[in-house]
Amino acid sequence: MTSTKIERIGIMTGGGDCPGLNAVIRAVVLKSLKLGWKVFGIEDATEGLIDLDYRSPFGNRWLGPEHVDQILTKGGTILGTSNRSDPFRYVVEQDGKKVETDVSDRLVANYKKLELDALISVGGDGSMKIAQQLGELGLRVVGVPKTIDQDLGATDYTFGFNTAVQTATNAIDRLQDTAASHDRVMMLEVMGRNAGWIALFAAMAGGAHVCLIPEIPYRIGPIVEAIKGRRKSGAPFSIVVVAEGAKPHEGEQSLAGPQELGAMPKLFGAAFKLAAALEPHLKLDVRVTVLGHIQRGGSPTQFDRILGTRFGAAAVDAVAAGKFGHMVALRTPTIELVPIDEALANERRVDPVGQLVQTAKDVDICFGD
Amino acid sequence: MTSTKIERIGIMTGGGDCPGLNAVIRAVVLKSLKLGWKVFGIEDATEGLIDLDYRSPFGNRWLGPEHVDQILTKGGTILGTSNRSDPFRYVVEQDGKKVETDVSDRLVANYKKLELDALISVGGDGSMKIAQQLGELGLRVVGVPKTIDQDLGATDYTFGFNTAVQTATNAIDRLQDTAASHDRVMMLEVMGRNAGWIALFAAMAGGAHVCLIPEIPYRIGPIVEAIKGRRKSGAPFSIVVVAEGAKPHEGEQSLAGPQELGAMPKLFGAAFKLAAALEPHLKLDVRVTVLGHIQRGGSPTQFDRILGTRFGAAAVDAVAAGKFGHMVALRTPTIELVPIDEALANERRVDPVGQLVQTAKDVDICFGD
Amino acid sequence: MTSTKIERIGIMTGGGDCPGLNAVIRAVVLKSLKLGWKVFGIEDATEGLIDLDYRSPFGNRWLGPEHVDQILTKGGTILGTSNRSDPFRYVVEQDGKKVETDVSDRLVANYKKLELDALISVGGDGSMKIAQQLGELGLRVVGVPKTIDQDLGATDYTFGFNTAVQTATNAIDRLQDTAASHDRVMMLEVMGRNAGWIALFAAMAGGAHVCLIPEIPYRIGPIVEAIKGRRKSGAPFSIVVVAEGAKPHEGEQSLAGPQELGAMPKLFGAAFKLAAALEPHLKLDVRVTVLGHIQRGGSPTQFDRILGTRFGAAAVDAVAAGKFGHMVALRTPTIELVPIDEALANERRVDPVGQLVQTAKDVDICFGD
Amino acid sequence: MTSTKIERIGIMTGGGDCPGLNAVIRAVVLKSLKLGWKVFGIEDATEGLIDLDYRSPFGNRWLGPEHVDQILTKGGTILGTSNRSDPFRYVVEQDGKKVETDVSDRLVANYKKLELDALISVGGDGSMKIAQQLGELGLRVVGVPKTIDQDLGATDYTFGFNTAVQTATNAIDRLQDTAASHDRVMMLEVMGRNAGWIALFAAMAGGAHVCLIPEIPYRIGPIVEAIKGRRKSGAPFSIVVVAEGAKPHEGEQSLAGPQELGAMPKLFGAAFKLAAALEPHLKLDVRVTVLGHIQRGGSPTQFDRILGTRFGAAAVDAVAAGKFGHMVALRTPTIELVPIDEALANERRVDPVGQLVQTAKDVDICFGD
Repeated sequence: MTSTKIERIGIMTGGGDCPGLNAVIRAVVLKSLKLGWKVFGIEDATEGLIDLDYRSPFGNRWLGPEHVDQILTKGGTILGTSNRSDPFRYVVEQDGKKVETDVSDRLVANYKKLELDALISVGGDGSMKIAQQLGELGLRVVGVPKTIDQDLGATDYTFGFNTAVQTATNAIDRLQDTAASHDRVMMLEVMGRNAGWIALFAAMAGGAHVCLIPEIPYRIGPIVEAIKGRRKSGAPFSIVVVAEGAKPHEGEQSLAGPQELGAMPKLFGAAFKLAAALEPHLKLDVRVTVLGHIQRGGSPTQFDRILGTRFGAAAVDAVAAGKFGHMVALRTPTIELVPIDEALANERRVDPVGQLVQTAKDVDICFGD
Repeated sequence: MTSTKIERIGIMTGGGDCPGLNAVIRAVVLKSLKLGWKVFGIEDATEGLIDLDYRSPFGNRWLGPEHVDQILTKGGTILGTSNRSDPFRYVVEQDGKKVETDVSDRLVANYKKLELDALISVGGDGSMKIAQQLGELGLRVVGVPKTIDQDLGATDYTFGFNTAVQTATNAIDRLQDTAASHDRVMMLEVMGRNAGWIALFAAMAGGAHVCLIPEIPYRIGPIVEAIKGRRKSGAPFSIVVVAEGAKPHEGEQSLAGPQELGAMPKLFGAAFKLAAALEPHLKLDVRVTVLGHIQRGGSPTQFDRILGTRFGAAAVDAVAAGKFGHMVALRTPTIELVPIDEALANERRVDPVGQLVQTAKDVDICFGD
Repeated sequence: MTSTKIERIGIMTGGGDCPGLNAVIRAVVLKSLKLGWKVFGIEDATEGLIDLDYRSPFGNRWLGPEHVDQILTKGGTILGTSNRSDPFRYVVEQDGKKVETDVSDRLVANYKKLELDALISVGGDGSMKIAQQLGELGLRVVGVPKTIDQDLGATDYTFGFNTAVQTATNAIDRLQDTAASHDRVMMLEVMGRNAGWIALFAAMAGGAHVCLIPEIPYRIGPIVEAIKGRRKSGAPFSIVVVAEGAKPHEGEQSLAGPQELGAMPKLFGAAFKLAAALEPHLKLDVRVTVLGHIQRGGSPTQFDRILGTRFGAAAVDAVAAGKFGHMVALRTPTIELVPIDEALANERRVDPVGQLVQTAKDVDICFGD
Repeated sequence: MTSTKIERIGIMTGGGDCPGLNAVIRAVVLKSLKLGWKVFGIEDATEGLIDLDYRSPFGNRWLGPEHVDQILTKGGTILGTSNRSDPFRYVVEQDGKKVETDVSDRLVANYKKLELDALISVGGDGSMKIAQQLGELGLRVVGVPKTIDQDLGATDYTFGFNTAVQTATNAIDRLQDTAASHDRVMMLEVMGRNAGWIALFAAMAGGAHVCLIPEIPYRIGPIVEAIKGRRKSGAPFSIVVVAEGAKPHEGEQSLAGPQELGAMPKLFGAAFKLAAALEPHLKLDVRVTVLGHIQRGGSPTQFDRILGTRFGAAAVDAVAAGKFGHMVALRTPTIELVPIDEALANERRVDPVGQLVQTAKDVDICFGD
């Protein structure tokens, strides 16, 4: 591991925001300053590097301890983020139409203009792919993984997930109170388009009765049976947790819901559709809560603050050690480095027959399978 | 004020549940036991008094200290509740159809069979009206007001409201984080069909930018202007709080939303409709969170626990003093008694030109008017 | 009420900090800017007005919306505070000794130099007395009351109290869990040197079993009896809430504790002394928690954020209306104005035979009397 | 792995209580019932098995789903616990004196009388040693590790630790607010007699400035320097986190504190002593908060609920598989089994030169070394 002369680095945060991003930024800044480096905070993912005057005079600045002093407890990211700023497919308006164009040369030019020696890129798989491509153009990039959905196999945990599950669990705790008083089915829609980790963890932590996730296509029959079974045993209410990407088993496509719902795919999630499909089968009111972006906000849990801090410090170590093209990862209990391309190849999905799902079934959670 | 010989009382909780109900029950039981009375806990509002075997052997019981020992911190009501159990219009199934029938005689007979000397009825205006009617049949009833919407003019506060506003405020705090990171409009739908108190208080406490309530019909124009105005001044995100009963100004009825949404009135609230109407006017994503019944659950705030406790103790005092047909009420800082009929006549709505709305406007909240 | 031409005002926060101070500051700034005024933020109570270069270049500045943008949710005060900056008895070091001197002329000169038309002073009785004296020197001052102890009779509530009680209540909730598992006496010391409001409210909200406050001198006998009584009835644990100013009844002065404790009055509070005195009488472990300044911190509850906002807006109204020498006050449900001198004359203490204490006794709380 | 015929098992919880114990109990009961087993809940650690009439009629019962229905969210343990019930050294009173006696034969007899096939013992190293000894007497025991201090090397995490750190972190967040407003040193004493994990994690998560733990003996000099250094750089306040077992470096034994404090070792912890020693060196007030047993209470975090649930289910699996003398352990991401004796031999302490402490130093935390 050859050490590299470093004097100035940049840091940016891309993709959807996650509780813990500010912990990463703070650790990168504090540790870099200790090493005598300067740290440039790039605003709104790559936007601030594509255009150095981006949103000036507020953004794009060299960061001192005063900028990171009170951010550890805060959700979001002080650098802002974006999920529409791929420099290789940058969207601009031409003649009233949106077209994609490659502006990576501007980004590279600005990297040189700022005399940056390396870049720490915090982001999801989209950001990591861009980081890889920027590496091919000569930029020296270290990655910090960020996915609130916990769907990256290379690291035991990513920050933000713990907070999101806690938020969803708190919501279930509240629904338990009111469901128990009222003989109702309470449905909670949580994040998770492709991976059901938030739904599974929250359902286990909240003591939910039904949990529907993308990895296990559901059937209406077993769900109705579980809810009715609870009534028979004297518990006339049920809590149903639905990942936004939960989908019915192939044989039950009619469940995709009333045609008219299909018209607004962005706004309406799995829960409303399922509620509409379930109600006729039950003699119970079904009430829906959609947590939405509440799951992305809030002060990070201690777990996510510590994980973010450790990721940030380890990323600085990686820069100092010249381990570009690598990403930090938690291999409990230590932080290690993994090649970015290897990490991207390894998605993590809930195993429908794994230990966790089995334990969930042991405590009476129905997956609709 | 003539004192009345009391030996046995009943207590029931009706209508939608509210954080703080258990504090009322606990105070009623502990204080009554101190006075040497027995307290019968009636299950699911009037259901347990219409049918003494209702859901036995679990429900309908004489309450001791052990039943109320750990309930102060819990949401919901240990007695259960119902909003479908008016004994004068009791819904039964006859020949496959639902018909209303008067079963008040059964309730009165059971009241006598249990040798109850009085009834403490905790509930909203529906429950209070029933209490009035039961009074005419000779039952001796004292009321404890319960409305999470805070829409009763006779009392400064009702328990549950404080907790619900705190829950909604916490949600706004979280949305602020993520909205600020992402340049988005975050919309939060809260409770309030006829009264906008929860929305108004939460918007003020959370620092929201738009607040739409039933008392102030909204227009799209000013809302769009407020959001765009924030962007111009460098804050490219906005938080919109919508009471479920918020409605557009007469001149903008088209806003009621796409026809197809009208088909599912029970499930879809004001927020989705407004989001669909707003998006075309903005160059920002609009994301919706529907808090739903989360607002009714959760451990009550200290304020609601104390208010519930004081209401319960005062209701026992009222029974002891023979003040039947009265309801307890908070006239800060003391608990007083008001005639139930007088209380019911006095609904409380947000005053569109009152001090509170004016202060909300002073801190830059737009009401769409 | 004559209106007064206002163009520039100052705002300062004095005394111990309170959750909700930032809500006041925010409302003052936002509303003043709407009226076209400029607002000078004075740092560390009067310090920044006694010396305009105080802690520059960070402090003492004209406040814009960007300074109050994200402060509503934050505890503490962005202006800083001090409880050692009475300009009439300003402490300076002379020849190695601390002496008091009158520097009010410097403060008045700086007020004029800044061309301030009025001052909004947020603080406790110390700050209000200074405000009165500054008024006599020709400064035009409007007061905003601040006391976390809730000991001011002129207003139904002051901000910060609600948050402090919630913090103490959360602590009791946690102690209940662990006390119940372990057969122990858990003692919690909360704030309240002269007034027992925080202890009383928290004890009622948390379901404590003993509550000791300055207004009701306690005897060891009844406390021991209450704890033993609980054991006999099958509840082998007790929660004791002690205000820091709680003191034994005259006849039990020996309780003041071991001589050696007397040596460190600042650090050790009522709880440790009482624990040492109680243990020999019980066959139970006694464990002590000292909440300390945790009660002054934390994100304000919605109640305190709204109250702070309303106080701030009302203070600006008072300035605009020329009501100097007055203080804002909550007379539920409206904010009104009261003369500062009248307000100061009216301290609020817990009434040992009032409705609240009676209700607390109804739910089995022992006051040691 | 030979399977064993199981029909009845017992479960008990020993040592100090921990958030997550009820999750273990719930999972053991629900999964065992699914397997057709009966589960006997033993009260107050071994007490209920030493004496089957122990505290009857409330305790010692066969557990059904109704007993574990609402316990997942609750702190403490519904079975009660004790750290004074070693059957091999059972403390009884004889002739007014306390003597230790071996009552293990009574425990074994009762185990047989109840026809138990196995025992699940949830507890710390004390409980595990007893479990080992009971194994030698022919009882078939599976262990579930419990230590809030996280000092067991055999498992990545134990439940309760996550909640305790979160509680301590919340406290630091609150102290940050009020310290920043007031130019003070805020000292927080947390649990940790021999291991500093809670202090270290909370200090990192809360952004504390000084962290003192048993593994790193401290000197006053560096602490004073760190606090003064912060003042010079414009941050006139500091947060100090002290593990109750933190101790001064050998050369600074005078720090053990004033003689008189030594007289009350049980009540006074490291923080008060350190505060008394620090104040003379600083021109700042030092304020102390002692979290105490608050850290053991509270609703478990989602992490601890899930970990408890998984431990419980895995313990049942271990019983079914006949893996007696083993203990469940988290080897992220799976639950595995380790021999109890091997586990006990492996204590986990904070490594003074490890990755975590290094990262803590990177973000400006001073350890007094």
